[in-house]
Amino acid sequence: MKQSIGAKTLAFPTPAWVVGTYDMNEKPNAMTVAWAGICCSNPPCISVSLRKATYSYAGIMENKAFTVNIPSEDNIKEADYFGITSGRDENKFEAACLTPIRSELVPAPYIAEFPVILECKLLHSLEIGLHTLFVGEIMDIKAEESVLDENGNPDIEKIRPLIYGTGNRSYYGIGCNLGKAFSIGKKA
Amino acid sequence: MKQSIGAKTLAFPTPAWVVGTYDMNEKPNAMTVAWAGICCSNPPCISVSLRKATYSYAGIMENKAFTVNIPSEDNIKEADYFGITSGRDENKFEAACLTPIRSELVPAPYIAEFPVILECKLLHSLEIGLHTLFVGEIMDIKAEESVLDENGNPDIEKIRPLIYGTGNRSYYGIGCNLGKAFSIGKKA
Repeated sequence: MKQSIGAKTLAFPTPAWVVGTYDMNEKPNAMTVAWAGICCSNPPCISVSLRKATYSYAGIMENKAFTVNIPSEDNIKEADYFGITSGRDENKFEAACLTPIRSELVPAPYIAEFPVILECKLLHSLEIGLHTLFVGEIMDIKAEESVLDENGNPDIEKIRPLIYGTGNRSYYGIGCNLGKAFSIGKKA
Repeated sequence: MKQSIGAKTLAFPTPAWVVGTYDMNEKPNAMTVAWAGICCSNPPCISVSLRKATYSYAGIMENKAFTVNIPSEDNIKEADYFGITSGRDENKFEAACLTPIRSELVPAPYIAEFPVILECKLLHSLEIGLHTLFVGEIMDIKAEESVLDENGNPDIEKIRPLIYGTGNRSYYGIGCNLGKAFSIGKKA
């Protein structure tokens, strides 16, 4: 028997990604987002939703670009920190002792210490309400060699990304491999 | 040292959700999506991206509504099945032995056997490329009593949702609770 929970932003899983931007003075900034996801295969696109009040919002509008930085479990404290303070008040990269690298493809910085980063050119912005959804075309993905599989592709089990749990607002790791997609449902 | 991977749709984690729709004859249909995410807090909204060629695309356009059905690990075979076949060719609910329930809030069916479902009214559609991004306002969430915590909220550890791993195209479960968001980064 199902119970009504109300109109809330609960869904499982959601990601914990860090969006990298420059401000108008080219100071690197970063903020953590969970309202985000891949949204198109061709061109390859990813969406992130930000409140207008955030400093990163202005950075995306200014530069028409952003990066998506995927933390490992090892980066959990830094990833959480980027979601607590505002780049308006401090240099978050310096405070977190992380290294901003200027993308050669888009005017946005990525985080050297995170295992996988996506360099994105702003394609669309859609005002929804409190949040604005930004669609970025993925121009390139860069990944540490240590998280690549034998074919040179990023391996989720080596990345060990964070999952953000809506509801209890906790981070989770990746659990067991449960089976192959487009395969195990063939006998359902 | 980071290596260039190319412009691909790789990000970690992505969800494995099942979108429920009616076709023009009110036949219930459902398809699995990974290109999706929460996209606004107020009004509470979720986005799902579908190819125009899918039967569900026509169902959303027809009814301006859809449901998002969150499978448990126990529903993995059915969730995968919904991503393999087309509702144009068969009645997927019958084939998967699952029960479509008509939402009382929006003209779309939800899956009785899945632990958490979101009932959504179409607010926006954005043509990106191969995929169209649909933004749905979450009108209500319904959850099985068995997955609620002591405060009556859905508990990710009881739901045990699926994670879709881009790259190796495998499903994963939820791992360990790694800490509280907006908290553990305060000392970073």
